[in-house]
Amino acid sequence: MNSYRPLNEQTAIDYLRACEPAHALLRPDEPLTCREVGDGNLNLIFIVSSEAEPARSLVIKQALPYVRLIGESWPLTQDRARIEAQALAIHERLCPELVPHSYHYDAPMCLTVMENLLPAIIMRKGLIRRTRYPRFSAHIGEFLAQTLFSTSDLFLDSATKKDEVARFINKELCKLTEDVIFTQPYIAGHPMNKHNPLIDARAAQLRADRVLLRELRWLKWAFMTRAEALIHGDLHTGSIMVTETSTKIIDPEFAYYGPMGFDVGAVIGNLLLSYCSHLAHTPDPTERAEYQGYLTATVAEVWNTFERRFLELWRAADAEAPEEFRQAFLRGLLQDTAGFAAAKMIRRILGVAHVEDLESIADPAERARAEIWALDIATPLMLRRGELSMIDELVALARSVPAPA
Amino acid sequence: MNSYRPLNEQTAIDYLRACEPAHALLRPDEPLTCREVGDGNLNLIFIVSSEAEPARSLVIKQALPYVRLIGESWPLTQDRARIEAQALAIHERLCPELVPHSYHYDAPMCLTVMENLLPAIIMRKGLIRRTRYPRFSAHIGEFLAQTLFSTSDLFLDSATKKDEVARFINKELCKLTEDVIFTQPYIAGHPMNKHNPLIDARAAQLRADRVLLRELRWLKWAFMTRAEALIHGDLHTGSIMVTETSTKIIDPEFAYYGPMGFDVGAVIGNLLLSYCSHLAHTPDPTERAEYQGYLTATVAEVWNTFERRFLELWRAADAEAPEEFRQAFLRGLLQDTAGFAAAKMIRRILGVAHVEDLESIADPAERARAEIWALDIATPLMLRRGELSMIDELVALARSVPAPA
Repeated sequence: MNSYRPLNEQTAIDYLRACEPAHALLRPDEPLTCREVGDGNLNLIFIVSSEAEPARSLVIKQALPYVRLIGESWPLTQDRARIEAQALAIHERLCPELVPHSYHYDAPMCLTVMENLLPAIIMRKGLIRRTRYPRFSAHIGEFLAQTLFSTSDLFLDSATKKDEVARFINKELCKLTEDVIFTQPYIAGHPMNKHNPLIDARAAQLRADRVLLRELRWLKWAFMTRAEALIHGDLHTGSIMVTETSTKIIDPEFAYYGPMGFDVGAVIGNLLLSYCSHLAHTPDPTERAEYQGYLTATVAEVWNTFERRFLELWRAADAEAPEEFRQAFLRGLLQDTAGFAAAKMIRRILGVAHVEDLESIADPAERARAEIWALDIATPLMLRRGELSMIDELVALARSVPAPA
Repeated sequence: MNSYRPLNEQTAIDYLRACEPAHALLRPDEPLTCREVGDGNLNLIFIVSSEAEPARSLVIKQALPYVRLIGESWPLTQDRARIEAQALAIHERLCPELVPHSYHYDAPMCLTVMENLLPAIIMRKGLIRRTRYPRFSAHIGEFLAQTLFSTSDLFLDSATKKDEVARFINKELCKLTEDVIFTQPYIAGHPMNKHNPLIDARAAQLRADRVLLRELRWLKWAFMTRAEALIHGDLHTGSIMVTETSTKIIDPEFAYYGPMGFDVGAVIGNLLLSYCSHLAHTPDPTERAEYQGYLTATVAEVWNTFERRFLELWRAADAEAPEEFRQAFLRGLLQDTAGFAAAKMIRRILGVAHVEDLESIADPAERARAEIWALDIATPLMLRRGELSMIDELVALARSVPAPA
């Protein structure tokens, strides 16, 4: 285990046989099978199962030294494996029920052995199928409140927080976000971008909106300068695994000290992308309206749970802070949330990395309608976020935007 | 030179005789004299001069492992000597004319050998005597623009800036600022506080102002979370040495990545403290009005020079940024500046560390009038800073507050 080597399906089994913490679940002498299932952009993911009892299984997540989607020509720091392991450890301490249990972190090998979250699925896929997750709002609201409050200056002592800022400096993955969310999508003709040709005119219009470009710079500046809390950094619905009763937040390799609203905005922006996608996925108007109503109610419940728990934690930790400050703080955070939600919606339509919610709409014209709707909702969310003081206003603003003809 | 020992007037001479970079100015074989002149709170300051030619002299600044003002019972990190030396090096690279030249930094000894700034004096003392500094606005505006712009994400590449954030984490000195500027002054009866008993009622009123307490929390939050630029961190008029033609910024041991407005606000807040102090120092109404007019014109010129140079540097470095963003950015920075200026004025009257501008007013009743005036000006500066979009409005707001009867 002393130097890095990428595993394959055979060496992954050998690795686990030699990994003592894994023996709690998989005995070294029993027959094991392994599949590599990584469909993300950056890592190898092995599922190693007992041949006799396939439900007994573990995941090995190993960082490759390059972006898998692109190849060895785009090297990427393996320090992200350390960041992810350390962030996961904090998340597990704060919310043990809401993240996969980690069995072992191997620094030289850049890998973590963790719980296999059977039978959970990636939330994004469930939303496409109109699945409802009755526990999701409560779970994600708790996760956001615990992880953002407990890693911030509102809770940690001043020196500990600064040590944590230094420990979680995450240069390369932050640069990736700065580029693919806040920069490239707004540059016409940037080679990393792609978009549906049918929305060319809307894309050009958005990229010429100087007020939007100004607000986008503010959000990028906030992302780069505001060390408020250890944020997950990539909290879209592809980083959340769900069943109807459980929610597990995975993949915090983008974690760093950043603005709290970036995480809350990621959740809400991705719920709104799903909302737009059902213009195509759900042709029946009644069924569509019902599911879209579920999604926007979920947006409100996520925020309300988050806000309530955040305030509870804060009041318990610091009875002295003026209530006027708490209220102003949460209002500012709601406005940040709206801005980052909007930026995350736009980049999924105009930037390099798209989402299955929209990409799975086969007909380009149908897809264009959903995409334009998302841009039409994102624009006022970003530009009018300074007017928002309650989540219901954010939801009403999104709902007031008509679907394109 | 391998382990720390505090110098005295004799060993300081021995040290310089053995310090090769110092030989450019002081020959090892010539007779030297030394005086320890530190009147600050934290360090030893030795001036070592040629006996034959006393104008040939050098300063040795050595960090003690405790707060000098209090004694060994209040230990303080000597890492501040590293921070100061590294910040000075950056300042000298960016503004060689505006800081003392450093000859030598000795890490184990926690000392820097630097230029002796004869015949410059501490600016605060000159302002008490109504001296005018015709080059000051241009110099400090240039210093602020260069140091804040060139160390920020507006200029540095993303990775370099994050390395700099880590290098300049300054836990103990930031904690000191958090306590003595943003926390203790607002706690009635805190043992570190002191104030003129004649302003008891005004102090109690200020500490009961819940809107002010809310805004104060915002400013503290900004100080703790916003890693915008390598700020000086203690840029009051006691950290500026002046002649009528030169300006030198010293003592950046509080440097860390923080909000730009904290430095600009320190300069402006201290000019406004001087403005209030002349209510007592300058009894002649015409003379007083003239000098106060000079001070508020200086506030405007400092900002205007800073803003002009900041925008020049920015446009040269990044032609792509929308002008709308630049304007909004500078407006936000002006508002931050007003808030931090106000916080710095208040703490000099209600907190642990006062300023000579006010303390040198012998008559307690006269001093109380000047102090109350400063609190009366600071309060709307903090509370109404969100309305400000031009420096003339900040100046007009300050000037609109009448001196107490």
